[in-house]
Amino acid sequence: MAGWTLPQPMIRALALAEAAAAAGEVPVGAVVTRAGAVIAEAHNAPREGHDPTAHAEILAIRRAARALGQERLTDCELWVTLEPCAMCAGAIVHARIGKLYYAAADPKGGAVEHGARVFDQPQCLHRPEVYAGMGEAKAAALLRGFFSARRS
Amino acid sequence: MAGWTLPQPMIRALALAEAAAAAGEVPVGAVVTRAGAVIAEAHNAPREGHDPTAHAEILAIRRAARALGQERLTDCELWVTLEPCAMCAGAIVHARIGKLYYAAADPKGGAVEHGARVFDQPQCLHRPEVYAGMGEAKAAALLRGFFSARRS
Repeated sequence: MAGWTLPQPMIRALALAEAAAAAGEVPVGAVVTRAGAVIAEAHNAPREGHDPTAHAEILAIRRAARALGQERLTDCELWVTLEPCAMCAGAIVHARIGKLYYAAADPKGGAVEHGARVFDQPQCLHRPEVYAGMGEAKAAALLRGFFSARRS
Repeated sequence: MAGWTLPQPMIRALALAEAAAAAGEVPVGAVVTRAGAVIAEAHNAPREGHDPTAHAEILAIRRAARALGQERLTDCELWVTLEPCAMCAGAIVHARIGKLYYAAADPKGGAVEHGARVFDQPQCLHRPEVYAGMGEAKAAALLRGFFSARRS
């Protein structure tokens, strides 16, 4: 019998991160689910559209809200391959995402367990449940491979 | 001779905030300028498009980057009527906005001089010059008027 495997949405987020790298974007992928169904997905794409806000999480949240016709995603889960930055953590708050799953921690740019620690601020209006670490090795390897290829 | 008057981009940002209120959105407006010219503008619009990320700053930054065909707005100024939240402060960092002017401080949701203090984090990759307070009275009055009308 197989051991524990990654949840399907994180497997998909990692595939999206690979697609980002193939497109010359920093490899980060994100998926929004609700009740087990995929509502929206995206990979990081700031270069493609000349859009500094086009992180995977922002794109996935915007697409999910549009798909559901509602500004709030209270009963949704966000799966992302990297610890969200301050911008994306703020968007998660505004969207009222119920549960956040992220793979690799990001000591340089992350704002969940590092830096601005957006959800830990006393003024923070909404705190998702946060689960970190699943898929971490693969997510980090994708990022390392991307940046080492660009430096060489 | 007239005394000091508000810079034109902040006057325009306040007019955009009024337009937001007229559209049923929280009254916040934003303008991006470069070398004295308006590159993009927006008002807060999360309800209109079912988009939790559609704060005035995010929309104005996205439009400016698209208009200039570049991801970074290093030589641009952002004028906004309210202290940016964590999401918008993060976007300002990613866009490398050179100067940030905001009118009213926001102790509840702001993340520049309150809460997450995004630009003050040691990991923060870019800090805009920040000028706060011009147009504050009008910006705050618009917000108070909007929320008191909705409570009554």
